Amino acid sequence: MFEKIAIIGTGAIGGYYGARLAEAGNEVHFLFHSDYEHVKAHGLKVESVKGDIFLKEVNAHKDVSTMPKCDLVIVGLKAVKNDILKTILPHVTADDGLVLTLQNGLGADDEIAKIVGADRVAGGLCFICSNKVGPGHIKHLDYGKITLGEYAPDFGKKGITPRLEALSKLLTGAGIENEVLDDLLLGRWRKLMWNIPYNGMSVVMNATTAEMVADEKLRPLFRSLMAEVQKGAAAFGREIPDSFAEAMIEMTDKMTAYMTSMMLDYRAGREMEVEAICGEPLRLAASRGVHLPYLDMLYRELSHLNVCGCICRLSASGN
Amino acid sequence: MFEKIAIIGTGAIGGYYGARLAEAGNEVHFLFHSDYEHVKAHGLKVESVKGDIFLKEVNAHKDVSTMPKCDLVIVGLKAVKNDILKTILPHVTADDGLVLTLQNGLGADDEIAKIVGADRVAGGLCFICSNKVGPGHIKHLDYGKITLGEYAPDFGKKGITPRLEALSKLLTGAGIENEVLDDLLLGRWRKLMWNIPYNGMSVVMNATTAEMVADEKLRPLFRSLMAEVQKGAAAFGREIPDSFAEAMIEMTDKMTAYMTSMMLDYRAGREMEVEAICGEPLRLAASRGVHLPYLDMLYRELSHLNVCGCICRLSASGN
Repeated sequence: MFEKIAIIGTGAIGGYYGARLAEAGNEVHFLFHSDYEHVKAHGLKVESVKGDIFLKEVNAHKDVSTMPKCDLVIVGLKAVKNDILKTILPHVTADDGLVLTLQNGLGADDEIAKIVGADRVAGGLCFICSNKVGPGHIKHLDYGKITLGEYAPDFGKKGITPRLEALSKLLTGAGIENEVLDDLLLGRWRKLMWNIPYNGMSVVMNATTAEMVADEKLRPLFRSLMAEVQKGAAAFGREIPDSFAEAMIEMTDKMTAYMTSMMLDYRAGREMEVEAICGEPLRLAASRGVHLPYLDMLYRELSHLNVCGCICRLSASGN
Repeated sequence: MFEKIAIIGTGAIGGYYGARLAEAGNEVHFLFHSDYEHVKAHGLKVESVKGDIFLKEVNAHKDVSTMPKCDLVIVGLKAVKNDILKTILPHVTADDGLVLTLQNGLGADDEIAKIVGADRVAGGLCFICSNKVGPGHIKHLDYGKITLGEYAPDFGKKGITPRLEALSKLLTGAGIENEVLDDLLLGRWRKLMWNIPYNGMSVVMNATTAEMVADEKLRPLFRSLMAEVQKGAAAFGREIPDSFAEAMIEMTDKMTAYMTSMMLDYRAGREMEVEAICGEPLRLAASRGVHLPYLDMLYRELSHLNVCGCICRLSASGN
């Protein structure tokens, strides 16, 4: 069913999962940006807690025009780069192909559906700790599970299709732990229960999760933000129980000092996924008459830091 | 009526106004902390846009025990130091003396009333740009007006008393522009209309007012915070009209890049007045059943930065 696979954006996420799929014997085509020449010459290297991978010969492409039509197109780009999908996806997606977006937050599924049609979109939520540490060099530190769901338009619920089951089987066959969801949108809101409070606040406070959860004055903010995510989800008929929020808090309290992905972007001077993680949930809730003040404030703070950038705050601090 | 005057906390504010009063011929006793020896030897120096002052002979005290009972006790301490007033004020305040607190925010008047009695407390809101630049050396850069009001217990309104008129006359006689308020609490809430959004956010964003107001994504936050100050004031029967909020926004848009006082404290590693500016208004509103989410978030963010300190954020940024 998925004979040819494309990886759009061969970074920490796309590179890791693509390498796993290629190692398992699948035909995987990788689209590279700046790393193309390096990978052509030296191959793709993944250091991983689940076993290292070295792909000497890679189906590497620097341009979508050399890529074949693929049955599965995995989008590993940061959400802030999604503009380029308009030109890429029509080229690389087979007529009955499926586009799987491995991005956090809301909005990307709808955007992609507009390009390839609502019946060709799936989303995957990655629980993984992986970094690109050099050209064609990825370091996978921990976890790795993907939860998969098919997209349904108008905030609907698609259920578990045979195609989704096949996708799950493909991943399992490549050693990628995964789970299928009957409701992608619920999965996305649930993931925001962590990403909004902890990713977002870590950037505003410039602190690790451990530094933040140790502060009794700061702690109630995480629950307040989660309560708003619950309200946002509820506006679309998705219930996230309080026990889920409590489990997130307990889990994070036990984590070791963790630099969130948004914080890594911030410190590296890369654009953060503020619109996907905060802006879109805020606007969607507002479209149903639900005002979320804590999220509104977080969104505006992060937007400012996204424009002004880490450098600006650092240089200002030096005065 | 105010024959002997005490200045408790001879810094940027107390030092400036005390020097003006002394220069005008009043008997002013200054309490110093670390600058005592320096001022004894070298005097007190004020560089001011309204005319420099040099007091060669200063009634300087390093301990309250040498101070006389005073008819007017001006508190120029930062609100975070108010704990020491319990031991200082009973020593230095004459039986029919008046304590005038030149502090921002809420809470100090009530605290002082508990020490000296509700009928001996006034508050002054300073619109001044003044810094301590060295031992016994103050630089007054701009403005200087004080709005004065007498304290009334139980969130009441005292009106304009003859004593307040006399105080106003004393200040005018020393070249200190001032205005009397019939309602101190309303004056305090009105001043928070600026201090909460601009002081508070400048620290969280580590930015000047000019940098902040130039950001269209950030701008709505100032109005949202002001709307909550309006709600807080309304919970105590004080109306602040929308036109006042709009005037604050317009004024700040036109200001040159301004480093707020809270930001100066933050960058110098001094404790910020987070409780007086944010914590107390938040708790007072809550005591009347009014929940202020934007202010709650700002309060928690500032509390974290107050504990962790500027240094912590800077060193973390260096990683």
